[in-house]
Amino acid sequence: MYKQNYRSKLLEEAVDQIASLPGVGRKSALRYALHLLREPAANVEKFTAAINNMRTGVRYCPECNMICDDATCPICSDTSRDRTVVCVVESLRDVLSIENTGQYHGLYQVLGGIISPMDGVGPDDLPIKHLVERVAKGEIKEIILALDTNMEGETTSLYIYRQLAASGVKVSTIARGVAFGDDLEYTDEFTLGKAIVNRQLFSI
Amino acid sequence: MYKQNYRSKLLEEAVDQIASLPGVGRKSALRYALHLLREPAANVEKFTAAINNMRTGVRYCPECNMICDDATCPICSDTSRDRTVVCVVESLRDVLSIENTGQYHGLYQVLGGIISPMDGVGPDDLPIKHLVERVAKGEIKEIILALDTNMEGETTSLYIYRQLAASGVKVSTIARGVAFGDDLEYTDEFTLGKAIVNRQLFSI
Repeated sequence: MYKQNYRSKLLEEAVDQIASLPGVGRKSALRYALHLLREPAANVEKFTAAINNMRTGVRYCPECNMICDDATCPICSDTSRDRTVVCVVESLRDVLSIENTGQYHGLYQVLGGIISPMDGVGPDDLPIKHLVERVAKGEIKEIILALDTNMEGETTSLYIYRQLAASGVKVSTIARGVAFGDDLEYTDEFTLGKAIVNRQLFSI
Repeated sequence: MYKQNYRSKLLEEAVDQIASLPGVGRKSALRYALHLLREPAANVEKFTAAINNMRTGVRYCPECNMICDDATCPICSDTSRDRTVVCVVESLRDVLSIENTGQYHGLYQVLGGIISPMDGVGPDDLPIKHLVERVAKGEIKEIILALDTNMEGETTSLYIYRQLAASGVKVSTIARGVAFGDDLEYTDEFTLGKAIVNRQLFSI
């Protein structure tokens, strides 16, 4: 890759680091670095301290693997939630997206990854055994699989489904269909086909 | 603005800080924060240390206001450069862009800003007096104005031109015209008009 001479080793190192963020190129990284250079030193200290504090301070819930600041997970410890349903998601971002809908009040299992032989991630790298143990305690009645619909997601869903088959727990997946606002014309055939097969009674 | 509940104060503070970068929204900031969360702690330390070191370590050349790591500016101290020409630019990024062309071998004057009454930036906030003093030393024969062609840029160019008028130094601006690869059809009338008036002898 073409590398610019920044005339400053310090600037170059900062740009290198910022450009390591996902989807950030060297041009954007330089822009961010120069912005931080113009900021008062106290603001830049706050900026880096917030990142360091997050990295060192954040804990993960031993039960659902969700991010939490202290020993008690805000979701697992919420007694108003339905403890008989567990939604399996890949990452914290999915939890935030589902929480935003306000439609789900059960618990979660954050996998923190997805089965992907290409990236060297196998079933044992994910807390799937832990999920099976949670189910074995008997309180959980339904597992909702909410993983991506790519190959890795489907593989992981199938693997979890098989691991849970013996337990007799109900396993469901979130509904796939045409998204609100999407034109039928531009919906891929597979999604549209699934949407017709899984049609629901019209209700208002 | 709608603010998400991140279920973690530490994550929220990091996202707040990252979202303060120019052009970074909260969705991207969350993506960067979660990336940093997944990275080994040592990498995150390197990331923040590089930014802190840059902010505290970078110096500005007392002569041209260019960024430099130590007391000597890599451009001003380069004896192979033409010391009779000074190119006036708004920011360090412009220096890097011009240096990339390999077509310029003179010195620079980085203004570090632009005259903008809207933002409360007046001529005295920029090193224009310093530039006049540099010219007064007698070594400089030409000043090239390479500022943006918006209102602030034109105002600043005009102001500098007037301040230098008495010194008898030659003042030029970079050529404006149709960029290589641009269609005439889509070039604005002002640029195309200027490009015709300032036509040059064809050469190969």
